[in-house]
Amino acid sequence: MAAAAPRLVEKGCVASRAGRIVFAGPEADLPARFDGAAAIDCEGRLVTPGLIDCHTHLVHAGNRANEFEMRLAGATYEEVARAGGGIVSSVKALRAASEDELVRQSLPRLDALIAEGVTTVEVKSGYGLDLDNEAKSLRAARRLATVRDVAIRTTFLGAHAMPPEARGDKDAYVAKVADEMLPAIAGQGLADAVDGFCEGIAFSPEQIARVFDKAKTLGLPVKLHADQLSNLHGAALAARYGALSADHLEYTDEGGAAAMAQAGTVAVILPGAFYFIRETRKPPVELFRERGVAMALATDNNPGTSPLTSLLLTMNMGATLFGMTVEECLAGVTCRAAQALGLQHEVGTLEAGKWADLAIWDVESPAELVYRIGFNPLHRRVWRGK
Amino acid sequence: MAAAAPRLVEKGCVASRAGRIVFAGPEADLPARFDGAAAIDCEGRLVTPGLIDCHTHLVHAGNRANEFEMRLAGATYEEVARAGGGIVSSVKALRAASEDELVRQSLPRLDALIAEGVTTVEVKSGYGLDLDNEAKSLRAARRLATVRDVAIRTTFLGAHAMPPEARGDKDAYVAKVADEMLPAIAGQGLADAVDGFCEGIAFSPEQIARVFDKAKTLGLPVKLHADQLSNLHGAALAARYGALSADHLEYTDEGGAAAMAQAGTVAVILPGAFYFIRETRKPPVELFRERGVAMALATDNNPGTSPLTSLLLTMNMGATLFGMTVEECLAGVTCRAAQALGLQHEVGTLEAGKWADLAIWDVESPAELVYRIGFNPLHRRVWRGK
Ligand SMILES: [Zn+2]
Ligand SMILES: [Zn+2]
Repeated sequence: MAAAAPRLVEKGCVASRAGRIVFAGPEADLPARFDGAAAIDCEGRLVTPGLIDCHTHLVHAGNRANEFEMRLAGATYEEVARAGGGIVSSVKALRAASEDELVRQSLPRLDALIAEGVTTVEVKSGYGLDLDNEAKSLRAARRLATVRDVAIRTTFLGAHAMPPEARGDKDAYVAKVADEMLPAIAGQGLADAVDGFCEGIAFSPEQIARVFDKAKTLGLPVKLHADQLSNLHGAALAARYGALSADHLEYTDEGGAAAMAQAGTVAVILPGAFYFIRETRKPPVELFRERGVAMALATDNNPGTSPLTSLLLTMNMGATLFGMTVEECLAGVTCRAAQALGLQHEVGTLEAGKWADLAIWDVESPAELVYRIGFNPLHRRVWRGK
Repeated sequence: MAAAAPRLVEKGCVASRAGRIVFAGPEADLPARFDGAAAIDCEGRLVTPGLIDCHTHLVHAGNRANEFEMRLAGATYEEVARAGGGIVSSVKALRAASEDELVRQSLPRLDALIAEGVTTVEVKSGYGLDLDNEAKSLRAARRLATVRDVAIRTTFLGAHAMPPEARGDKDAYVAKVADEMLPAIAGQGLADAVDGFCEGIAFSPEQIARVFDKAKTLGLPVKLHADQLSNLHGAALAARYGALSADHLEYTDEGGAAAMAQAGTVAVILPGAFYFIRETRKPPVELFRERGVAMALATDNNPGTSPLTSLLLTMNMGATLFGMTVEECLAGVTCRAAQALGLQHEVGTLEAGKWADLAIWDVESPAELVYRIGFNPLHRRVWRGK
């Protein structure tokens, strides 16, 4: 099930044609028919696949710096909420923003990722919470790929939070997500996958199942925000639906890990949110390792719990906070991240047939990409062979 | 004692002449005699003093990514040491590097700081551990200021660790530091201050006192790595010598904080090292606040315990890990950091008479500089008015 561990090739060489890799391996083994092609001399630098951020809420409006400041100054969650803070403020800001404005506000965040060699980014909706605004978010996400050299995968996350106008009737809102919003979004081809937030403060496993059932009938793969703050057995639920990934997973237990291993569901580890909200319970990395659950790493970029736009720092956090090895961190933002998006045949490794998306680094060893904090050693990024 | 808290001026304006600020305040109050001077239109952006990193070991050779990788893979400290890891490896690498090579290797780290609006950087020696190599480090540090638009303050840290050739005779090595190395370094004008590492694994308070006594007779201010891993009352020792700063301070107690407040010794908080070595004991921020001890924040950039080159991220860590407020974080990398270097009359605030070192930011509120993680909103950096 698991993709091969990243392997370092000395004096390596990658050849591409029409944006696809046609050869990757030792330069000495390069077939003669590729001689004389246009070449980028990497001068002995490390070349990796372009990085993949497989879990973001990058398309959002405004920020929640004010809320952050209030909490540091001692305000309670209640006081923050009374001052208009919390996810409701992000919903309000997103609804007020035009599609153009969303693209404009999201680009600096995307550019920060791109500057670190990221070539594929997943973007979720989930701040619109009605059809028009969810569709607007997903359209804005798709448009990012028309103004930057990057691949965008969109995920419909209608079941993210309760819209204020639903007045707490979760079943009614979930029915709307499953029966109205999701078919319309799918019909417009706006989503590559469907996600939900399974948690006491969000939706129950039964409510998520309702959304997933509809996603299945529409032929869309699913993924899930699972077991972040408590154990509602979200990981096992995701596995039952053959989810591409279950994400967060701080409270996932043996049963959840076993189910994920069986289903080939990737564990997407999100240390930025763990760090930012001062969570103390760590995801069971050792358990995932033992069970052979593939682990990816992502920024979870979002205004409320992870205003993080560095995948390099995410790797450092995966290692420093969770004890992930250098190899696991690198795989987590390349081949495992590709798997979490169902793109394992397209990107994530340097293999013939895949897109020639590369990152070329000014480092002496792969470990340096994980070890440094707040330093960007990218020498050059190659997108589709260029 | 304490400098005024940072104050936000709406529609503000800074005027400079010959590199110095001649006016800072509301644009409406700008004296007519400064009309018509060359202007930078900041278009409503936030302007802060250039940032100051007041504690770094930025001049070093090689890195310790290999050691980091080994530890993540489960190696013990002993195994790392047997493989040539630990501070000894940094000493070996620094001694083997020429002064030119040190400058070359340090520049990318300095450039990472500069890219975030840093205009003043403190750099310590401490990997040479003999006169020639300590002098070489400090000369390399001073040379950085000749190849970049940045102010460098050098600190002699001979009492950082034991050189291998001293064979564990700490008193003999300290005598050499105090009686031979320090006078020679001072004689060559290579150090702006003197530092030491007061810890069980490094030097005792008595040994540090010996170095500080000599620094005093040579007219050099002192600072101290104090109370990081245990409470040897290093903060109180530093205060007794009127130190500019005591740094780390995870184990500092009431007595230490009171002594620092009395002496005007700045507490330099180093969250990068706390984060990287998975320390759990936090510096007593609340106690410093109560006692009126000024708090600065710095990267502690070094290859072994803080390979961190982002002062913006350092602010976020000060807030997230230690609960420092936005105001404290911003003061910590501006006016408080200036104070920790004895430069409070030269830099660190926007006041007439000080150097016109500015950072201009693409943010709507100062809190955004602290809230974001791995994002650089610098619009432009101004060095000495340009
Ligand atoms: Zn998320
Ligand atoms: Zn230090």
